Amino acid sequence: MNIPRTSFPRIIIIGGGFAGIALAKKLSKQEVQVVLLDKNNYHNFQPLLYQVSTGGLEPDSIAYPIRKVLKDFPNFHFRLANVDEIDAKNNTVITNIGNLKFDYLVVASGSKTNYFGNAEVEKHSMAMKTIPQSLNLRSLILENFEDALLTSNLHERNALMNFVIVGGGPTGVELAGALAEIKKGILPKDYPDLDTRSVQINIIQSSDCILKGMSDKASQKAEDFLEKLGVNVWKNIRVTNYDGKTVTTNTDLIFETATVIWAAGVKGALIKGLDAADFITRSNRLLVNEFNQVKDYNHIFAIGDIACMVTNDFPDGLPMMAQPAIQQGKQLGDNMLQLLEGKPMKSFVYKDKGVMATIGRNKAVVDLKRFKFQGIFAWYVWMFVHLFFLIGFRNRMVVFINWVYNYVRFDREARLIIRPFKRKN
Amino acid sequence: MNIPRTSFPRIIIIGGGFAGIALAKKLSKQEVQVVLLDKNNYHNFQPLLYQVSTGGLEPDSIAYPIRKVLKDFPNFHFRLANVDEIDAKNNTVITNIGNLKFDYLVVASGSKTNYFGNAEVEKHSMAMKTIPQSLNLRSLILENFEDALLTSNLHERNALMNFVIVGGGPTGVELAGALAEIKKGILPKDYPDLDTRSVQINIIQSSDCILKGMSDKASQKAEDFLEKLGVNVWKNIRVTNYDGKTVTTNTDLIFETATVIWAAGVKGALIKGLDAADFITRSNRLLVNEFNQVKDYNHIFAIGDIACMVTNDFPDGLPMMAQPAIQQGKQLGDNMLQLLEGKPMKSFVYKDKGVMATIGRNKAVVDLKRFKFQGIFAWYVWMFVHLFFLIGFRNRMVVFINWVYNYVRFDREARLIIRPFKRKN
Repeated sequence: MNIPRTSFPRIIIIGGGFAGIALAKKLSKQEVQVVLLDKNNYHNFQPLLYQVSTGGLEPDSIAYPIRKVLKDFPNFHFRLANVDEIDAKNNTVITNIGNLKFDYLVVASGSKTNYFGNAEVEKHSMAMKTIPQSLNLRSLILENFEDALLTSNLHERNALMNFVIVGGGPTGVELAGALAEIKKGILPKDYPDLDTRSVQINIIQSSDCILKGMSDKASQKAEDFLEKLGVNVWKNIRVTNYDGKTVTTNTDLIFETATVIWAAGVKGALIKGLDAADFITRSNRLLVNEFNQVKDYNHIFAIGDIACMVTNDFPDGLPMMAQPAIQQGKQLGDNMLQLLEGKPMKSFVYKDKGVMATIGRNKAVVDLKRFKFQGIFAWYVWMFVHLFFLIGFRNRMVVFINWVYNYVRFDREARLIIRPFKRKN
Repeated sequence: MNIPRTSFPRIIIIGGGFAGIALAKKLSKQEVQVVLLDKNNYHNFQPLLYQVSTGGLEPDSIAYPIRKVLKDFPNFHFRLANVDEIDAKNNTVITNIGNLKFDYLVVASGSKTNYFGNAEVEKHSMAMKTIPQSLNLRSLILENFEDALLTSNLHERNALMNFVIVGGGPTGVELAGALAEIKKGILPKDYPDLDTRSVQINIIQSSDCILKGMSDKASQKAEDFLEKLGVNVWKNIRVTNYDGKTVTTNTDLIFETATVIWAAGVKGALIKGLDAADFITRSNRLLVNEFNQVKDYNHIFAIGDIACMVTNDFPDGLPMMAQPAIQQGKQLGDNMLQLLEGKPMKSFVYKDKGVMATIGRNKAVVDLKRFKFQGIFAWYVWMFVHLFFLIGFRNRMVVFINWVYNYVRFDREARLIIRPFKRKN
């Protein structure tokens, strides 16, 4: 990779997610050379992917060009690259576009869907971690309804209109709620020829409550909201397999369905070279100390989902969410500048700003440190916070317009099959 | 196809473009059963595709769900289908989802890119007639700049930064102008490592002027605008081939380029069954009479690009543009109702509402019947007219916001490689 060395130390950041971007911004206008590598040329606002899948927002309004984030920073270089391996001994990253030496390395590669080793589930189910995946899901949902119109086989038609979401975390809950609103508000008008009352939305959770990380109140209320919307919430049930037709579970319960959305877990997006060591946790994350240094290294850091920082409150590591990522990115920026000046770094302290999830129109749950509330006010808070954290004025405006429009009109206009999913397979 | 027969006559419309949608709206709430078939579930506002390719607009804001257009109309059925053949003898359309009988058939299948039989050009060049094609072009343009950064081979780098647009009609001119503005306003900031002054934008026109259908004044002014923006306008040159690396012409001129956009012509999207007859024109259009009846048929009609209606002013048929399509769709709606009541149909008279093209910021050319003007006022008119003809309030709002933002900030934020084009090949 032809990036010229300067007199400044070179910091390579792998990943332009919440953590990587927060760090990059902190390092701007400093006496360091920063090389940011990402396999996409955009930052992707993952918390709103479910709205892309369900036609509420266009994909481009939750993506932001990484080059634009960095455009005013001198000494910054972005490269569109897949990092294949980290050669920690030789301070080199090995990528599909060549190798590059670093003085400091920050792994901010995020997370990916965890299928817990079940290859058949991975093959047949849909994920929702990236924009292309979310667009594939959008196409599939719409193609299923088009296909349901065509078959006279009742069994097949029901399977096409049966949606199974595995995992009752925020992603699963938010998707289930959005699908339920489509069932109610859009399908009867769009498909007058189809008995859309037969549409089933199922959410399967292995433990005894949904939104496990949140308060009991939030969890209970979210379940009430979902049931009011007509979603079937199945608890204490573990999915054992999906062969493309039938979901089997650890009980007698089975689901005949054409669509399984796997939102049952994530794991760190490990990179070869740091993956065979003794500092990997069960969820494929890199153990880091309070300065986000990867165990055994002084010049290799990890931040965000890929980093597992154990604290008293979080014995399994900080949660894999936007807030720890942003906070770690910012603080690591400050710490690296300290380190370069030979000054001591500051321990990271996670400020829990709360957790929230939206279920549908006027229905959300918010757990702040001191206040926990649910319903319409929570829903406004949820929207405000998500608009605030979106990058870019244009994106905020477009998302805001869409939300107002969708709210007033009970609509979701991006129900477009731009790239068919089934037909190409 | 399981669409039940009613006592109403069945009209099948093939295609949900400008013509098909205008017709469908006219037939709403009438005593007819209408079946609209399209291979996409959305109507696509083709005149703005070049803004999708150049990151100025998101694809979803120029697409509109066909089911939503028809949602309040009783006796309407939409099916997502490819029509493979028309069996005119048996009044049947043959599609990938089964056959369907009709009483009346309206072919509104539009047009497709015309490569004039050159398979190599078709294989290696990019087209811009559909949203996926426009997104592919957007990805390719951005991938080329990313790749230009990686190569130390100057020849290769120049080819990656050399854009050749074949065809000086509105599509070619508008795309060239947009690329020129990207070169000027965005590339230097996004790619500080790259000498973006080497970016070349070429437009090749086989005749002696661009925007051939417009007035001399418009054509000349458009050329001035393009040259002011740094676009190389090559006239009286015909492209003979492109092998993926080199564009050859009927002169000594050659272009080494990684990107050819073929905007040199369109032809009717003919459907088998009506394609072997003597009423096909040189540009693959169906000859129709003044009632849009396909020659030799009383119950088969064609409207829009696929229809060739010869008039005194247009001896080669009405132009393949939105206006004739919309006007024919509307009038055919009225005429079909007349026909069903046994009353005489009215001859179609094309109302020429003018032609316009935009070249860039504050730069457009407008030819109305009585007035011809160019420059900033033309540009405002162009924007107003395009907003007006976009379907859907939300689309209009989102496009408007984007245009204001792009204008104020000299920006185009949808420069996203959502689905890479080169890497997947």
